[in-house]
Amino acid sequence: MVETLQRAPTYQRFEAPERKLFGPGPSPVDSRVLQAMTTPVLGHLDPLFLACMDDIKSLLRYTFETDNRMTLPISGTGSAGMESCIVNLIEPGDEAIICINGFFGERLLEMTERAGGKPVVVRAEWGTPIDRNKIEDALKSHNAKVVAIVQAETSTGVLQDLKGLGEMAHRHGALLIVDAVTALGTHKVGVDENQIDACYSCSQKGIGAPPGLAPVTFSERAVDSIRKRKTRVQSWYLDVTTIEKYWGSDRAYHHTAPISMNYALREGLRLLAEEGLEPRWARHELNHRAFVAGIDAMGLSLSVAPADRLWALNVVTVPEGVSEAGVRTRLLEDFNIEIGAGLGPFKGRVWRIGLMGFGSTRENVLMVLEALRAAMAREGKTCPSGVEAAESVYAASRG
Amino acid sequence: MVETLQRAPTYQRFEAPERKLFGPGPSPVDSRVLQAMTTPVLGHLDPLFLACMDDIKSLLRYTFETDNRMTLPISGTGSAGMESCIVNLIEPGDEAIICINGFFGERLLEMTERAGGKPVVVRAEWGTPIDRNKIEDALKSHNAKVVAIVQAETSTGVLQDLKGLGEMAHRHGALLIVDAVTALGTHKVGVDENQIDACYSCSQKGIGAPPGLAPVTFSERAVDSIRKRKTRVQSWYLDVTTIEKYWGSDRAYHHTAPISMNYALREGLRLLAEEGLEPRWARHELNHRAFVAGIDAMGLSLSVAPADRLWALNVVTVPEGVSEAGVRTRLLEDFNIEIGAGLGPFKGRVWRIGLMGFGSTRENVLMVLEALRAAMAREGKTCPSGVEAAESVYAASRG
Repeated sequence: MVETLQRAPTYQRFEAPERKLFGPGPSPVDSRVLQAMTTPVLGHLDPLFLACMDDIKSLLRYTFETDNRMTLPISGTGSAGMESCIVNLIEPGDEAIICINGFFGERLLEMTERAGGKPVVVRAEWGTPIDRNKIEDALKSHNAKVVAIVQAETSTGVLQDLKGLGEMAHRHGALLIVDAVTALGTHKVGVDENQIDACYSCSQKGIGAPPGLAPVTFSERAVDSIRKRKTRVQSWYLDVTTIEKYWGSDRAYHHTAPISMNYALREGLRLLAEEGLEPRWARHELNHRAFVAGIDAMGLSLSVAPADRLWALNVVTVPEGVSEAGVRTRLLEDFNIEIGAGLGPFKGRVWRIGLMGFGSTRENVLMVLEALRAAMAREGKTCPSGVEAAESVYAASRG
Repeated sequence: MVETLQRAPTYQRFEAPERKLFGPGPSPVDSRVLQAMTTPVLGHLDPLFLACMDDIKSLLRYTFETDNRMTLPISGTGSAGMESCIVNLIEPGDEAIICINGFFGERLLEMTERAGGKPVVVRAEWGTPIDRNKIEDALKSHNAKVVAIVQAETSTGVLQDLKGLGEMAHRHGALLIVDAVTALGTHKVGVDENQIDACYSCSQKGIGAPPGLAPVTFSERAVDSIRKRKTRVQSWYLDVTTIEKYWGSDRAYHHTAPISMNYALREGLRLLAEEGLEPRWARHELNHRAFVAGIDAMGLSLSVAPADRLWALNVVTVPEGVSEAGVRTRLLEDFNIEIGAGLGPFKGRVWRIGLMGFGSTRENVLMVLEALRAAMAREGKTCPSGVEAAESVYAASRG
């Protein structure tokens, strides 16, 4: 035992600079949200914490634009939310139409396979949206139980139009699962309006809390389907019918909720509700348009066609002769700015620049445009400033 | 849309009193740990956060008393840690000896069934430990791949002696899984010394951070077994070989780590390392002995035989004629003290009083003894004070 005591590691307090988080997430966290985590920890069955949970459910219903009873945060990150939707709705042998036009569609496929589902894959090129006719063809030629699609592909910056997809899936007896990880709080998701049956997101992008929780919502149609399962959900931890017994009126212990993370989520959602969904979407749109104007003026280009672009995540093509990693390192080391690298086929070819949640501001748009220009210059590539073009978008928006 | 905006819920900032957390967890959180969560959020691939992860792995190896390479926190609560051990080590059809002497043994059984394992159940009465001869009998009569056992049964307050179990399992070609959710940081777990192959815990008990992370460790023998699987791990989120690619030298993105929770875990572990494991265990033992002396002097009794008692969680039998829930409500409302109710067959029959992590102090022992006496008196049951008896234990310990 003396040996054990001798090897007790000693570390200093962990310090971190105020990074400007302009990557694909986590996004910048408001100080009100950070402070919320210092609220004294309550027990997970304390009546005061149960009231906090009720507030969170109500705030999540507002954010998802739904009246779904089963609306709660899964105690894991966005990927746990994705897995909870897949494993609750897909039983072994179930056919599932999986739409893939980026990294997170591939993840949906992998989870479907691990759940024993029979995937029917509908693909589009990276950087383009899914063709809804292909989804309808797949629905016609298969007896699919679900259609799963990503609204905001964080790997490519592509926005998927959801209009009519829920109605189409229902017409063919299927349920619609939507990945709103980067969409929620930045674009309209409209769970009820779009007839989405299962939708998952995360705490650290449009909501602006730290990562650690995955808001999910299930329609009554989805809940019915789960109730009629022939097999148990393969994951105990992600079984929403038992999780709901804790988050619902039963208050039956399931697992110990991450108390402090829920405080942070509540505060992030409270800030969102104070701003309002429509003003928040409009803010993301305006800052996106200003950023794009700046990028255009700098002679750079985005990887996605104008109509399909996300407002919260801009995927910029790395110009020829410029070191993709070199510029990111310059931004981090010289400007304290994080942007994201490309994934999969986009690796080394794009920068992913997020302006999401509390990070979507005019000051940040101007800062990242200038920092990008300076970082590229230090890597040997000079280009004009994008600031004036961005400012003209703001000026026009003020009328 | 006007409708959506009209129903934006408005809430005040969430406030919580400083509850004295003397239940089965979460345990009291040191202010250094709460403050750590206000550290600026870094990206999950930021070199500074990667260094923080390395510190956490090193501190966890110290805490688990292991050199296991695969030692990391799962991004979920203790139950996610449990499920990660089950689904990585058990393939459909594998025989698994599941030891059940309380609520969390039952949970191991349920997860094993959901993973497609064939459980071989070894039972003991609630409130008693598992008979190791029965485990050996089960190993002899079955071709089990794993033995799973709970070291500290949080539902009953029973400590399981682990000595020789790892060696016994290995002799029969099985792996040993140990639930150290309430044990880690309060009792010796000794992963290497006890030849444990997979061990999981949580952030919010012996470590004293908020709930939200589940430290796990896997031996090389366990990692080999995972490598030789014929099927993929059913859970993508809990697949430790891919999680390890992020926590190990590859740094390959898996999921977005809960940054702020990891700051809290690091600070909780740092406090633990500053104190040292052996002094920490000794502190828990001493405060447990003083508490028990007080309970005895009050004419109350513990539900577990002296040799089998946990130091961090005392399960007290509710005396006849006293309202179990009434006393808990008095403690919460009049004294701001949380204690735990019984689960399963112990429901309504016991109180679970935790003195764990930062909560295991002399002041807390005396406070909870007196508060319990006062709460019982208000519910119509008078008894003598336990303070003097508890103090005599402290006096004796000082020599």
